[in-house]
Amino acid sequence: MRLTFDEIKNEIKRVFMKYGLSEEKAETCARIHTESTYDGIYSHGTNRVARFVDYIKKGWVDVHADPSLDREFGAVRIYNGNLGPGILNALYGADRAMELADQYGIGMVGIHNTTHWMRGGTYGLYVAKRGYVGIMWTNTEACMPPWGGKDCRLGNNPFVMAMPGPDGGAPVLLDMAMSQYSYGKLQVTRLAGKKLPFPGGYDREGNLTDDPGAIEESMRILPIGYWKGSAFAFMLDILGSVLSDGVGAVDMDAATKGSCGGCSQVMIVIDPKKTSVSHDISLTVKRAEEYLKSAEAAEHAGGIRAPGEGIEKFHADHDRNGIYVDDAVWEEICAL
Amino acid sequence: MRLTFDEIKNEIKRVFMKYGLSEEKAETCARIHTESTYDGIYSHGTNRVARFVDYIKKGWVDVHADPSLDREFGAVRIYNGNLGPGILNALYGADRAMELADQYGIGMVGIHNTTHWMRGGTYGLYVAKRGYVGIMWTNTEACMPPWGGKDCRLGNNPFVMAMPGPDGGAPVLLDMAMSQYSYGKLQVTRLAGKKLPFPGGYDREGNLTDDPGAIEESMRILPIGYWKGSAFAFMLDILGSVLSDGVGAVDMDAATKGSCGGCSQVMIVIDPKKTSVSHDISLTVKRAEEYLKSAEAAEHAGGIRAPGEGIEKFHADHDRNGIYVDDAVWEEICAL
Repeated sequence: MRLTFDEIKNEIKRVFMKYGLSEEKAETCARIHTESTYDGIYSHGTNRVARFVDYIKKGWVDVHADPSLDREFGAVRIYNGNLGPGILNALYGADRAMELADQYGIGMVGIHNTTHWMRGGTYGLYVAKRGYVGIMWTNTEACMPPWGGKDCRLGNNPFVMAMPGPDGGAPVLLDMAMSQYSYGKLQVTRLAGKKLPFPGGYDREGNLTDDPGAIEESMRILPIGYWKGSAFAFMLDILGSVLSDGVGAVDMDAATKGSCGGCSQVMIVIDPKKTSVSHDISLTVKRAEEYLKSAEAAEHAGGIRAPGEGIEKFHADHDRNGIYVDDAVWEEICAL
Repeated sequence: MRLTFDEIKNEIKRVFMKYGLSEEKAETCARIHTESTYDGIYSHGTNRVARFVDYIKKGWVDVHADPSLDREFGAVRIYNGNLGPGILNALYGADRAMELADQYGIGMVGIHNTTHWMRGGTYGLYVAKRGYVGIMWTNTEACMPPWGGKDCRLGNNPFVMAMPGPDGGAPVLLDMAMSQYSYGKLQVTRLAGKKLPFPGGYDREGNLTDDPGAIEESMRILPIGYWKGSAFAFMLDILGSVLSDGVGAVDMDAATKGSCGGCSQVMIVIDPKKTSVSHDISLTVKRAEEYLKSAEAAEHAGGIRAPGEGIEKFHADHDRNGIYVDDAVWEEICAL
């Protein structure tokens, strides 16, 4: 199904208001879900609306809560997210981190006791479109085994790096989870009767496999780069805790408040105008992107893309044909 | 061959003084090379001494240069490395970043126009042992193709995250390059007549392969996580440039001043005592590590390790038997 931006946003807003969000908060959250969908990140846009409502019903998200300042020191602010909607907490944190970057060149906001921020890239794009560099991550409940282990002990913690794009265009954006494939990708591939392009995990017998169903069964998804992604995920977990005065996977798993319930987020924001004074930032990015793309194309490859460029393909399609929403997902939202 | 710490350090110091470093600078650089060797990172310890001397001879490293302050704003300092020894520039930057973290909770130092810092983990360990959290990286000349391309356009940029270990013990350390395997690992595996444990790149025909020799020939090493590591490496390149007022792979490739000649480094340092006020940091790390290791062991796995823990195995061996140095490498150092 194809819908306009406002059709999607207004319907999600209606749902969020029905479940207790103020009109202003519902508008913001609905807009972010719709923007993710417009960018082609359906998994964290429309497809997450029903789950968010479920979390409200279960009391895992407090629609009335706002972040409260726990501690300030220099260019650092620590907030308690009070289990408020993750999107609102994260936008609030990004705003504060930009203010700190204005004042100190760099600023860091740690938010503990918060909830799922949906798409990490949202906040990278948010600061990059306003001229800042963002380095951000969240920790999550465990859903991936560590290297050398069978049981899930690591969060699939998303790591975000973003900066303004060349000539005021689309930002450069890395928004990367720690697993080679998401569970969503496994499911979609299995339902299509296909194999993964590269091995994505282990089957129950401990064999590396490209069969998505076997990985869904074993729950042994593969970290990117094997041992490297495993170590990276662990670092993001503990640094998330320590830099936000919050908790990590071990405590989220014990609390079982859904995905990212009570998680810890870190947002480091830098003003590149304070650092790149003798180089034009736009030109630096443009030259780097041109150099990247000057490589000869690999066999059977779909071209070389700069990070974040994939979004433009979705925008072009969505602008022409309307924004894609899965029929069943839309039906579910409308029934809420 | 097995040697004591001082035997190795003193011989390297002799060499560095012969090639123009002051006694103090030679002592520091020799100590860092020896520490990397003691930690088992031979590739960036003893094995790099001859190349460093070669760079001095070629004028790519200026043994007399010190970093100079280009710009200060709030918690940010930008330095020109003046092509001085990368180790000294990076230690200087780490010291300044810790001072900024004392004052502002977080500090960032960007150093442009610097040279190879050898092992990235050195500076992560340096700040972590002093109680700080470090997030650091350098960009490098291109030595890895981007995803979808054949020609090298990406640096194998190392990314470092470090924090104090539990109970004052060894720090938690991620020191990760962007390729699945280093060229050193490819060479060692080929010389041993073995295959890589997992595919490490493409052969000349564009087939993914675990044959190290075929990858050395094609120079098509694989980024960790395929497209993910490719995007990550690109972000580290441009953010390295922009946050240090320096250059990236495109300009380093044009200048051809050896590996990392004129590169850009970023060091973000945070004081976790300013952020983690209601949680004991040591306990947070200890509980996270225990949880990680509570997973059932995977088939044929050598156990689950916390990031940085591998160093302890080398320390135990080196303390018992002396520090390992390759015979040919030692001969080469002694002949300098």
